[in-house]
Amino acid sequence: MTTGNCQNRRTVFYLSDRTGITVETLGHSLLTQFDGIKWRKIGIPFLDSEEKARAAAEQINLTAQQDGCRPLVFSTLINPAVRAWIEQADCAIYDFFESFIDSMEKELGQQSSHAVGRSHGVNNNASYTKRIAAVNFAQTNDDGISAKSFAEADIILVGVSRSGKTPTCLYLALQYGIYAANYPLTEEDMDSSSLPSIIKPFKDKLFGLTITAEQLHKIRQERKPNSRYSSLSQCQQELQWQESLYRRERIPFIDTTATSIEEMATIILNRSGLKRQLYGE
Amino acid sequence: MTTGNCQNRRTVFYLSDRTGITVETLGHSLLTQFDGIKWRKIGIPFLDSEEKARAAAEQINLTAQQDGCRPLVFSTLINPAVRAWIEQADCAIYDFFESFIDSMEKELGQQSSHAVGRSHGVNNNASYTKRIAAVNFAQTNDDGISAKSFAEADIILVGVSRSGKTPTCLYLALQYGIYAANYPLTEEDMDSSSLPSIIKPFKDKLFGLTITAEQLHKIRQERKPNSRYSSLSQCQQELQWQESLYRRERIPFIDTTATSIEEMATIILNRSGLKRQLYGE
Repeated sequence: MTTGNCQNRRTVFYLSDRTGITVETLGHSLLTQFDGIKWRKIGIPFLDSEEKARAAAEQINLTAQQDGCRPLVFSTLINPAVRAWIEQADCAIYDFFESFIDSMEKELGQQSSHAVGRSHGVNNNASYTKRIAAVNFAQTNDDGISAKSFAEADIILVGVSRSGKTPTCLYLALQYGIYAANYPLTEEDMDSSSLPSIIKPFKDKLFGLTITAEQLHKIRQERKPNSRYSSLSQCQQELQWQESLYRRERIPFIDTTATSIEEMATIILNRSGLKRQLYGE
Repeated sequence: MTTGNCQNRRTVFYLSDRTGITVETLGHSLLTQFDGIKWRKIGIPFLDSEEKARAAAEQINLTAQQDGCRPLVFSTLINPAVRAWIEQADCAIYDFFESFIDSMEKELGQQSSHAVGRSHGVNNNASYTKRIAAVNFAQTNDDGISAKSFAEADIILVGVSRSGKTPTCLYLALQYGIYAANYPLTEEDMDSSSLPSIIKPFKDKLFGLTITAEQLHKIRQERKPNSRYSSLSQCQQELQWQESLYRRERIPFIDTTATSIEEMATIILNRSGLKRQLYGE
């Protein structure tokens, strides 16, 4: 076991039978709990044979030698023969299946299937088709103003130009199979103090996005430098009008400035009571 | 502790301080290992106060009573006071942080920060901006044929109409910050036996998608029923030509028929040697 001085650097391996999405998500969550360490991350997906496992174990051992301390290994390895190779390598191994599956088998009074590749495969064709259809919907209706699309939508995101509607719609579609349309609030809409007439009938589906004027100014500057569109005063004016509209019409809204796409999607689903379609539930 | 007969039904709770993405990913991976059980899934994200924890514990207890057996609870709860409420509820709890963080602290010789919401927040603004830029790139260049966009792209997916290029490009952009363009192979391209001239200079960036003729026929039928475009013979012809092109030009390719978007993205990144940008690495 190599336990030298790593000088605040550590190599991390993500090992998986399949895509590695689960193990990377989990490992990332744990690593963010440790400050001041520079991580070097190496992903080895599709680790599904003893031959590959032996090569991975050798790579881990070599890394331990070179680094002067043993790597962390996060894994979701279902095949015990594959896992055995890794377990004898010079590393600290955190296997997510091994840690929970025994206890779950007892709780459920049932053996687990030990089948590989179930998590992100196309197990549920209806769910897969729904996600693709939702992506098509988001793409077709991006900044598209059509009563028909609003009628079909599960949710309609509203907000001024560059407030983050498009990526959030796409994420909702790809990740959750949600039909997300969007309506861009424009200067013409600002002439009125009420909701634009085309979205009025769908008020219950509306969810507002907002952003700080400084951030919007910065984003718009990249797009159209030194224009009226991108000026700080224009951004301030649009946002003030927008937020007072949200408040007056009681449209739920969030500030996207310091919120990741993932967080926004979860907050929106949570507050709007939409059933999530993640993983074909 | 309630351990009645659940008749192959179990309620599962996903509890999280923040979005719940990590805990749902973990729980889903584990649940897919158990066949024949009908899961009822309840997500409680943003569980960040003792008050909310007490309410969640009550809901869990009530569920245990109603179901006649205790629910499974997957959690990523960093706040010990919040977790304590759940631990005393009538459930089988699998807390992801608790299971690994102690061992990691010992291995790293360092206390963890116990800070909430690090995993999916906007910790790394450059990475966030890159993802948004990548989404814009994918959208702007979707089915768009421009040498400029191909020059900027990290990767160019090719394939006949409806072979799965668009959702895969968007997923690569949203999840990994990859600049993914695509080039739709058309009937005009089939007149020649070599690569379309506009993509020739970018041969090293090409990655092919293919699909079975039956599946393509089915997908196209939904779009344009009973057309030449959607006929099985047309699909067969296009796919034969496409696959022989891939082979002749040594373009790596995958069959999307039984592959999820996540798997495709991982396979493409893995084979093309593109560095992933996940989570701001």
